[in-house]
Amino acid sequence: MLRVGIDIGGTGIQTGIINEHYQIVSEGSIATQTDIPFSEQIKCIADCVKDTVKQGGFTFDDIESVGVGIPGIASKKTGEIINCTNMGWHHVPFRDEFAKYITKPIYIENDANVAALAESVAGISAGTSSSVFITIGTGIGSGIIINNRIWSGAHGIGGELGHVIFDLNGIPCTCGNHGCLERYCSATALIRMGREAAGANPHSGLMKAVSGDLTRIEAKTVIDCAREGDPLAVSIYRTYIRYLSQAIASVVNLIDPEVIVLGGGVSKAGAFLIDPISAEYPQYVVFRDQEIPPVRLAVLGSKAGIIGAAMLN
Amino acid sequence: MLRVGIDIGGTGIQTGIINEHYQIVSEGSIATQTDIPFSEQIKCIADCVKDTVKQGGFTFDDIESVGVGIPGIASKKTGEIINCTNMGWHHVPFRDEFAKYITKPIYIENDANVAALAESVAGISAGTSSSVFITIGTGIGSGIIINNRIWSGAHGIGGELGHVIFDLNGIPCTCGNHGCLERYCSATALIRMGREAAGANPHSGLMKAVSGDLTRIEAKTVIDCAREGDPLAVSIYRTYIRYLSQAIASVVNLIDPEVIVLGGGVSKAGAFLIDPISAEYPQYVVFRDQEIPPVRLAVLGSKAGIIGAAMLN
Repeated sequence: MLRVGIDIGGTGIQTGIINEHYQIVSEGSIATQTDIPFSEQIKCIADCVKDTVKQGGFTFDDIESVGVGIPGIASKKTGEIINCTNMGWHHVPFRDEFAKYITKPIYIENDANVAALAESVAGISAGTSSSVFITIGTGIGSGIIINNRIWSGAHGIGGELGHVIFDLNGIPCTCGNHGCLERYCSATALIRMGREAAGANPHSGLMKAVSGDLTRIEAKTVIDCAREGDPLAVSIYRTYIRYLSQAIASVVNLIDPEVIVLGGGVSKAGAFLIDPISAEYPQYVVFRDQEIPPVRLAVLGSKAGIIGAAMLN
Repeated sequence: MLRVGIDIGGTGIQTGIINEHYQIVSEGSIATQTDIPFSEQIKCIADCVKDTVKQGGFTFDDIESVGVGIPGIASKKTGEIINCTNMGWHHVPFRDEFAKYITKPIYIENDANVAALAESVAGISAGTSSSVFITIGTGIGSGIIINNRIWSGAHGIGGELGHVIFDLNGIPCTCGNHGCLERYCSATALIRMGREAAGANPHSGLMKAVSGDLTRIEAKTVIDCAREGDPLAVSIYRTYIRYLSQAIASVVNLIDPEVIVLGGGVSKAGAFLIDPISAEYPQYVVFRDQEIPPVRLAVLGSKAGIIGAAMLN
């Protein structure tokens, strides 16, 4: 049997059909539209799924289930999407509305949880029964896999590693609190650190790399300058690696999964990210003389959303 | 069938036999001895178990299993106790040695995990399938229950909430790191806060309560003075409640169990602890507009160690 995965994002919606080997055998996509009513948004998504099935040469008799990954949270019981800011959805009856067009079992999950599942089934953590996937982008998202299943909490509000308190009385967070972990470990944090430091060091390589225009400093700018040995960028990046190492150690001290998987934009730094973290993070683990989880890079990239969504059940 | 629980502590070792209703039907105890060889320690414990079985009017034919709770960590695979500082045990073959005297299935677990299991089976969290138990004493211990089972991690080193980073560059911790959660949320932290504040405020009610002897300020002193309305103690206790609330919110943001259970010495403050935490902690939860876990007081007290150990499997 085949499974449909739908990856809902802020700019586009990807659909895919997955076979039993976790391969994508048909794909489709539409642009995200937020200026049309909810019922039309759902009809567009369902039409895209129908096209994807048809273009693959399949019928819905071949399809076992439909899974949806969203940048937000949903209720497993009711199939309601509680919150999905990018789509303008607040307490919308996704499953009921979607079922008007496609009558298959429908599962909805947060996109970080979906990516965690994808990696644990078909990616870098395949073969493990527990893992924590951390996606390092604008914020910090995370997905916890325990006993081969997503653990998103008893009320579906877990997996928010980005909002664990990391620095008492620290930097204000978008969530309304202070000192949340993502204010120190996200791409946004690295950009902030880069801009602050470059602003105070106008003759640095980092500042030269953006011809003096602070607003052009992105996470990649800091990483590239650190790679090239600019002392200021190296210093910032070392601090950032320490923050990430301490964050990972916190996850290990509390949850101790079989493996930690890093994804998201910053993870594109590859070995330049994973090597110093792997070297530094053990020192913050309480039982550091025991076997501890390795830190690995996610491998499925943008396909994780479709594959993981399809695997939901 | 009956089950044996053994609760190994720094001053005493308690043994008990539990029936299918989680009642203790026979009990025994011996003093903890650290000045005798490991093999003799184990023989003493086994003898105590034998006595407890006999005194209850039972034989080993009635006994299904033996569980042991330790203030340390053990390997499930090998039955080795990896670390149990109070007993002077480092990499000792507990299960193999114990099996020389009693040939029943033997399970070994960290004592906070054991208490978490006990509360989830026979205590305040009975009937839930997920919970996080937090014991507030000299340090902060924790036990995670997911799908009705202890989750102590893939390598057995999880559940160490006390060593999650809580304050970047914060107070040095006994583990060698800085800013660990237990430096802010344990009884030890409350004592430190009380002594520091009283030292700077010699005319406070808190200082009068100990007749000017700072070393007599314990967690209970601060709590009692706060209860009586001493402004200094009230101020310290409010800060401490905030720390605990932020710690609990971090657990909820990451793990979101069905219920949070508080135990340990500080939890004896009862409603004076749980009421302000229940009022304050939701504000630090990301999805605070959703249903979130209630915070409850542990009810099994010192019996949790025997009951939980007996329930190990």
